[in-house]
Amino acid sequence: MLKLGVIGTGWITKQFVAAARATNAFELTAVYSRHEESAQSFIDQTAPATAYTKMDDFLGSDVDVVYIASPNSLHASQALAALDADKHVIVEKPLVATAMEFEKLDEALRKKPQLYLFEAARHVYEHNFQVVNDFTHRQQIDGATLTYMKYSSKYDAFLAGKLPNVFNPEFAGGALMDLGIYLVYDAVAWFGVPDNAVYLPHFLKSGVDGDGVARLDYGDFSVTLITGKTTNSSLPSEIYSGRQTLTMDNAAELETIKLDDQVLSTEKLANPMEAEAAYFAKAITGQDRNAFDKAWQLAKEVHQVMSILRTSANLDF
Amino acid sequence: MLKLGVIGTGWITKQFVAAARATNAFELTAVYSRHEESAQSFIDQTAPATAYTKMDDFLGSDVDVVYIASPNSLHASQALAALDADKHVIVEKPLVATAMEFEKLDEALRKKPQLYLFEAARHVYEHNFQVVNDFTHRQQIDGATLTYMKYSSKYDAFLAGKLPNVFNPEFAGGALMDLGIYLVYDAVAWFGVPDNAVYLPHFLKSGVDGDGVARLDYGDFSVTLITGKTTNSSLPSEIYSGRQTLTMDNAAELETIKLDDQVLSTEKLANPMEAEAAYFAKAITGQDRNAFDKAWQLAKEVHQVMSILRTSANLDF
Repeated sequence: MLKLGVIGTGWITKQFVAAARATNAFELTAVYSRHEESAQSFIDQTAPATAYTKMDDFLGSDVDVVYIASPNSLHASQALAALDADKHVIVEKPLVATAMEFEKLDEALRKKPQLYLFEAARHVYEHNFQVVNDFTHRQQIDGATLTYMKYSSKYDAFLAGKLPNVFNPEFAGGALMDLGIYLVYDAVAWFGVPDNAVYLPHFLKSGVDGDGVARLDYGDFSVTLITGKTTNSSLPSEIYSGRQTLTMDNAAELETIKLDDQVLSTEKLANPMEAEAAYFAKAITGQDRNAFDKAWQLAKEVHQVMSILRTSANLDF
Repeated sequence: MLKLGVIGTGWITKQFVAAARATNAFELTAVYSRHEESAQSFIDQTAPATAYTKMDDFLGSDVDVVYIASPNSLHASQALAALDADKHVIVEKPLVATAMEFEKLDEALRKKPQLYLFEAARHVYEHNFQVVNDFTHRQQIDGATLTYMKYSSKYDAFLAGKLPNVFNPEFAGGALMDLGIYLVYDAVAWFGVPDNAVYLPHFLKSGVDGDGVARLDYGDFSVTLITGKTTNSSLPSEIYSGRQTLTMDNAAELETIKLDDQVLSTEKLANPMEAEAAYFAKAITGQDRNAFDKAWQLAKEVHQVMSILRTSANLDF
């Protein structure tokens, strides 16, 4: 049983802890928050564990794995601190806010090859992600339009003059970082690293992108990514192969995969984070270096593309 | 009854002639083609008329209105010749291939204010186009994603090494000119002239764009246009207003307009060109200068945006 410590006490941490416990491979032992009440309230709502308000104490506890779901701008430094304390790490996406941060994590991992660090890119570990992956690696690809746009629960507060973390450039917020990264994972996993990439964002007054379109150039074809946190889209996503079109709900929630009118696969997940939690547990427990390398290589390529997209749009954190 | 002469004998001319005759305002009297057999075959399949293979003879006949559906690169010069011969003109979209061509037509029309020239932007005259227009002029707009992508019936020939007009840069072919222009009409009519516009095309070996994405910047929001002639998309189009989303089939075929789950309007057209034919006939017959000016002003703004999009992509004809 892996002892799990968590940083951040929001809804996503609750969902991850539930998924982790459902795998029967993790037990929650430590909860970090700057606020004692937040940590205690989290524990009351999930499982018995020790509350910590000092990072050193938290990282000094006997946890095996640290899960990080703090604001984006803190992910890398907290992950480095956890590695430094000899913990395996699972970081909510986006793992990093800059290319330099990725380099530092890569270097830290090279120095401690017994430790694993995973980015919690949830959908990558789902069955239907693999169904699409099998298709794209078997068929000729002529392009794709991948969409993930959702009106953020925090956007009303932003419009009312507040500055929630997800719309704050100081916390590396914005649509690309929060939802667009799902699409970049899709594109890199399914089609590979593009030859070129451009991001055309619409900037909010705070300086982050409220929505945007990325275009990835693969030589023989191009891929369009549409993301946003200020409007609601129910556009499906499409992958083109000659006259045929593969369709999925959107590019992050892959409940139904269709090829033209034919359903290839449907999957309804009770907790969409269970597949990733199971993968991370299996890799860590079984010391499966190959499973780690595969995930790390994909994360590396994804963040190379993310960095190019941000640079093309002068969206630097 | 307006005497109609047509240039071009393809399927679109047949459909326009059928629509024009259905309005009971036009009669077909003259058909121009470089090839006698094409003109005669067209007449055999539609209505009695005189076949012409010499442009001077065709324009010297007693037609009141000339409809032009030749390759894109010939539209402007043929329209100029028709105006010069004192004919009203209806030109299949795109009206022009360059900004300079538009200027020349504008000047020719200023010199002959009794003549009307319409671009056959079919969907603009449909009832559901107005339904969307009413929405966008009444509601706050927060963006839109407009799509029109269809695998061209000529693309197999292109892949087999031939060079059909629609994929030939010499004839001003490509996705933006052929299908993208519908989306530019949508955006300019519904949202106005953007502050800025960029087109990111995927180029085919012939030098035209097989597909592409345009991003129009309106200051407070951005609009994404997705077009292509090499793949099949069934993506609906969306207009965002706060948490609400207006949906249409795609951005050129507006059969059903929905606001979230509520159907605002459905319309199934037997011949989708009838609305435009009726509008053109009424304007010409009634000498309705206002109806002409409105259509011409919209065409002018559309082609300003088209020119900016082409320039941004180095797609110059």
